[in-house]
Amino acid sequence: MSEALDEFMAQCRTRCDTGLQIYGGFGGELRQVAGLAGLETAIDYALETSGKRIRPCLLYAAGQAVGADSQLARAFDHLACALELIHTYSLIHDDLPAMDDDDLRRGRPTLHKAFDEATAILVGDGLQARAFELIADAPGLSAVQKVAMLKVLASSAGLGGMVGGQFVDIAGTGRALQLDELQDMHALKTGALIRAALSLGAIAAGASASQQEALEVYGEHIGLAFQVVDDILDVEGSTATLGKTGGKDALANKTTYVSLLGLAGARETAEHLLDGALEALEHFGEPADMLRELARFVVSREN
Amino acid sequence: MSEALDEFMAQCRTRCDTGLQIYGGFGGELRQVAGLAGLETAIDYALETSGKRIRPCLLYAAGQAVGADSQLARAFDHLACALELIHTYSLIHDDLPAMDDDDLRRGRPTLHKAFDEATAILVGDGLQARAFELIADAPGLSAVQKVAMLKVLASSAGLGGMVGGQFVDIAGTGRALQLDELQDMHALKTGALIRAALSLGAIAAGASASQQEALEVYGEHIGLAFQVVDDILDVEGSTATLGKTGGKDALANKTTYVSLLGLAGARETAEHLLDGALEALEHFGEPADMLRELARFVVSREN
Repeated sequence: MSEALDEFMAQCRTRCDTGLQIYGGFGGELRQVAGLAGLETAIDYALETSGKRIRPCLLYAAGQAVGADSQLARAFDHLACALELIHTYSLIHDDLPAMDDDDLRRGRPTLHKAFDEATAILVGDGLQARAFELIADAPGLSAVQKVAMLKVLASSAGLGGMVGGQFVDIAGTGRALQLDELQDMHALKTGALIRAALSLGAIAAGASASQQEALEVYGEHIGLAFQVVDDILDVEGSTATLGKTGGKDALANKTTYVSLLGLAGARETAEHLLDGALEALEHFGEPADMLRELARFVVSREN
Repeated sequence: MSEALDEFMAQCRTRCDTGLQIYGGFGGELRQVAGLAGLETAIDYALETSGKRIRPCLLYAAGQAVGADSQLARAFDHLACALELIHTYSLIHDDLPAMDDDDLRRGRPTLHKAFDEATAILVGDGLQARAFELIADAPGLSAVQKVAMLKVLASSAGLGGMVGGQFVDIAGTGRALQLDELQDMHALKTGALIRAALSLGAIAAGASASQQEALEVYGEHIGLAFQVVDDILDVEGSTATLGKTGGKDALANKTTYVSLLGLAGARETAEHLLDGALEALEHFGEPADMLRELARFVVSREN
């Protein structure tokens, strides 16, 4: 990883983590209802993670690529938090016993293990609602921009996006999928929210239609590459490096890019996707350098 | 129930049910991804209910009270569906084994019984996202109105609203609550979304600040009355009339208005709340008659 990218990602993480502390749960306001203290503790646990915050990084980098006004910094922080709240809620629900049944996430007990299942369901539900509230509250953006972004986020997170992808994933477990089925599933499950990160950045920064389109193409490639690399890491990585249980896909009899293409084939696919992502940025020039570095990072990361 | 109210509620139900068929799940569009068909079936099951659609009724009646333009009919249908999607998702999640563990809802097996738990979690998650999407998509409203409504719905449905209330409810089960704790809990759990129904109607119809405030006061009273009557019905009603398991509160050792105030005391409280709701409408005149009738219905209903 280059020094510049390292610094950029650390900055994004800090901005997002600080934002989540301020806006993440109840918005910093202590609730009057005494019984809610327990919910706040669980939310704090859910949001205090060592996650890479890759979606916020893509959002900020998309804003940079389009030349977002520096006065929009707080608006971007709201959007970064919204994306991370959706991502976090989806992990909490995916980890539940009725879904992927995971005990470990980013090196710590999953929320339903640290608390209980009811709390995990409710925290997830509440974080989803909070994500939409944060966009509606974002300072310095027009109502028209906010409505466009709310639409993007809702459709990416919903039935025809992330939730639909998780359904297809679970329904397909134990059955051999074709490559196009696998790709369709991931385009929804992880791809939709990654594309949303880029769209949100583009809309907030006032991107032109052709810029928005290019960023979407970039997002499609990066989203798929992210998943291909995830599959590779699940095979190659140890539980310690990943911070989650490694080798689970094979145990669960899941079709992955590695099971379909082999390790070498999956690596090659990831490289092709990286090329496609970089190509989509060709008209952006230097301001898109961070997006280019992020694309390379997604493909070469080790956890 | 008066004939006028009966007809009004039937109309609201039809508009909402038709809306849910058109916009409820994937928006009528058949998805390309084959694996999503199973999700669509579960969504159809979740939305085909004989629910009273009380929140949509309150929304439409609030619009009528303020004198909403008839050209806004489709916008109101979007809002009605959004409210009902949030309500439906919350019932699906509340029924889960880790939460209230209910097998029966509106006379039919709950979603996780008819399908499975993973599907029930995901359908709930997806319906929530769809609700926000529907508001963002509502025709004939300004972006400023939509952002205001999205904010109201997100905060009412979220951690400081419905979700928070459900958390307090579960956390308090088995422990004796004080009357004010019980009221705080219900103000969040069921009250917040009922107040939201009135606020959404007010914003969409272009209500003045004082009209909005009056409708909120009406909503507060009606929301609490609704819950008091629910507690009464749980004791008095049979499973057949309720369409859900009766007598559950006592079995679960839950504090209710009846356990705190007795049946007669709970009835009296409901009547006081009705008076407060009607008083809040005093400056509205005849256009608010349906809201008045709905208030009486909420207090006198038998299921």
